[in-house]
Amino acid sequence: MKSDKKIITISREFGSGGRLIGKRLAEKLGVPYYDKELLDRIAEESGFSREMMEDAEKKAKNSFLYSLISAMGTAEAGPESLSLNERFFLAQFDTIKEIAGEGSCIIVGRCADYILRGMPEATNVFIYAEEEDKIKRAVEEYGIPQEHVKKLMKDTDKARANYYAYHTGQKWGEPVNYHLSIDSGYIGIEDIADLIIKYTDVKLFR
Amino acid sequence: MKSDKKIITISREFGSGGRLIGKRLAEKLGVPYYDKELLDRIAEESGFSREMMEDAEKKAKNSFLYSLISAMGTAEAGPESLSLNERFFLAQFDTIKEIAGEGSCIIVGRCADYILRGMPEATNVFIYAEEEDKIKRAVEEYGIPQEHVKKLMKDTDKARANYYAYHTGQKWGEPVNYHLSIDSGYIGIEDIADLIIKYTDVKLFR
Repeated sequence: MKSDKKIITISREFGSGGRLIGKRLAEKLGVPYYDKELLDRIAEESGFSREMMEDAEKKAKNSFLYSLISAMGTAEAGPESLSLNERFFLAQFDTIKEIAGEGSCIIVGRCADYILRGMPEATNVFIYAEEEDKIKRAVEEYGIPQEHVKKLMKDTDKARANYYAYHTGQKWGEPVNYHLSIDSGYIGIEDIADLIIKYTDVKLFR
Repeated sequence: MKSDKKIITISREFGSGGRLIGKRLAEKLGVPYYDKELLDRIAEESGFSREMMEDAEKKAKNSFLYSLISAMGTAEAGPESLSLNERFFLAQFDTIKEIAGEGSCIIVGRCADYILRGMPEATNVFIYAEEEDKIKRAVEEYGIPQEHVKKLMKDTDKARANYYAYHTGQKWGEPVNYHLSIDSGYIGIEDIADLIIKYTDVKLFR
């Protein structure tokens, strides 16, 4: 049995073009696209301000500080009173579940693959590439200055891996967490989007 | 620019159905399939006997022993005289290069992805699945007795990872070593073969 509903989550290395692929998928399928858009929706529903959430996301970039703040928040106040970071993650968790319940959509990042695991309509995709290919894309397409690109790439992916590990207990980018992993260096954005759609067309409903 | 020549290497976890996918690909594309068939070809060209090669492959199952034998072989005799295992790997290396030079084909296992890395016509695919799915397939399709399946699966994959790490210095199953990684638990063998062919149709020639 197949389903017409397509929830596609995209996890991606910095510079791999994952966001572009997500946007192209949303256009091709005519479904909503969520990345930063998620924050607006969470703000609406949870009462968190955009500023506070963006601040919490920035903090996640320092992996050690992030774990420390989260751990301290709960340790001091007891399990019933969660730290701000954890409350923010839970709000995100609820909103992602809710969005996925509403119908087809594309969600980039934010542990959406983990949050929607086991949902038969969800397809989790990981987009990566070789380092030189990611640097080239980041400089030429995202306009990142050449001298900053390596550090920015390393820091961003480290923050993503850390955020994922902290909230899911899993290793970010490990194949078993995704249905499909694609190196974006050997196939165009348009063709990757088509390939993912073809996958969702034949994915077993289980 | 695209090429009509398709070299597809399949690396696979035990129980993931990777061999079946390789065979199906060979049938669909009408091209030669190499797995155990490689050993015959190596025997023909290198003078190694089938028995010796199968023995060397079995030895690789004990990771510690394998590394030790290989290291001792070279350490004792100096770099110009390679250990038997290393000579066997080099013969395999040459034969895989030669086979890939001849035309389209499917090669399962044997570090073929690494050996053919950088060849524009080569597409490297990794097939994996969740543990319960692999157990189910190994018992129902390969006929492995239920009580042996977990240990056999663990030992086989450990041997593959070790063999790969020893000869390539890379981590087996790490996405960056493959163009495409697919969880075989959510899509049928036939559909996976079609998806891989579609990928090779649009893969950039670089």
